[in-house]
Amino acid sequence: MKLPAPLEAVVESLQKLPGVGAKSAQRMALHLLKEGPDAMAHLAQQLQQAADKVGFCQVCGAFTDQPTCPICLDPRRDAHSLVVVAEASNVLSFERSGHFRGRYHVLGGLISPLRGVGPDQLRVRELLKRLEDGAIQEIILATNPTVDGEATASWLARILDPIGIRTTRIGLGLPIGSDLEYADELTLDRALEGRRPV
Amino acid sequence: MKLPAPLEAVVESLQKLPGVGAKSAQRMALHLLKEGPDAMAHLAQQLQQAADKVGFCQVCGAFTDQPTCPICLDPRRDAHSLVVVAEASNVLSFERSGHFRGRYHVLGGLISPLRGVGPDQLRVRELLKRLEDGAIQEIILATNPTVDGEATASWLARILDPIGIRTTRIGLGLPIGSDLEYADELTLDRALEGRRPV
Repeated sequence: MKLPAPLEAVVESLQKLPGVGAKSAQRMALHLLKEGPDAMAHLAQQLQQAADKVGFCQVCGAFTDQPTCPICLDPRRDAHSLVVVAEASNVLSFERSGHFRGRYHVLGGLISPLRGVGPDQLRVRELLKRLEDGAIQEIILATNPTVDGEATASWLARILDPIGIRTTRIGLGLPIGSDLEYADELTLDRALEGRRPV
Repeated sequence: MKLPAPLEAVVESLQKLPGVGAKSAQRMALHLLKEGPDAMAHLAQQLQQAADKVGFCQVCGAFTDQPTCPICLDPRRDAHSLVVVAEASNVLSFERSGHFRGRYHVLGGLISPLRGVGPDQLRVRELLKRLEDGAIQEIILATNPTVDGEATASWLARILDPIGIRTTRIGLGLPIGSDLEYADELTLDRALEGRRPV
């Protein structure tokens, strides 16, 4: 027996979400059904609202339901330092830790010759434009420590060098709470490179 | 930093789904956002459609987008035996195994004095009505082997006894592929009770 067609459609879509398999997608859909049609309609409305209202900040590219995000508008944020990340969701990770008081710039991806993504598809022009008024004094490159992330960081560092703004890379090394025994060689190499006086 | 409010609302609703925690709800919402507003709106529409169209079969109480479900309408299904289950989703479990060729009756819950659920809140009257024409010759009680499930099965058996229809309980015992060593005492007791000549 198949599920009723409209329910099957929901299960198929839920299955595309990260970490959701066929079985858990069905469990979720059935759970919503059991809660009554209101629960399903409620989630539907919320998704529709989010789809309609949430977009990208016109300045930094982070998620927001306003033209400009609260971080870019907040006068208490340090206007001198800028963390550059690949994805809008990366902004959330930094904000969760809560220690960085500067602003962000979202590239919207990483340079990846294999996937045919060049600098032109990223928000690099927007980044350079933000540097024009001279307020930003440090750029912290915070792309992931992957092949594409490292390549993008190197490329950006080369581009930013002639402009004369201090450009740094976030620290790479052993994560807090980890064990040397399980660290891979590349991480250990980076941890040694990144050593600092105590 | 908080997520944009419409997104936060989506995350909160997703979190109520079974097996979805705070972190995976956020991952799902961000995934939908990354896919673009269309992906989110698409899921919203599907949920709305399911909420509007999927209801319960007027005969057996299973999920369906028609007044009467395909199983109740299918003339090839055996009209003589009826599996009685607690929830509409239980019908799907039986249909997945695919060997039962009879029909179903969904109670819509279990008798549970602790939760204040009595027989009147279940679809018992509808069950008795289905027995009136004498077509059904066997009722297989397939509520879960839990306290409430067992109590409901016993209660139904008592009610059905004077009507003179053969009433059986689904087999209880060791699940296929399990190990005696890990079987709990109650299951072993039931497995012994349910022993059959080889």
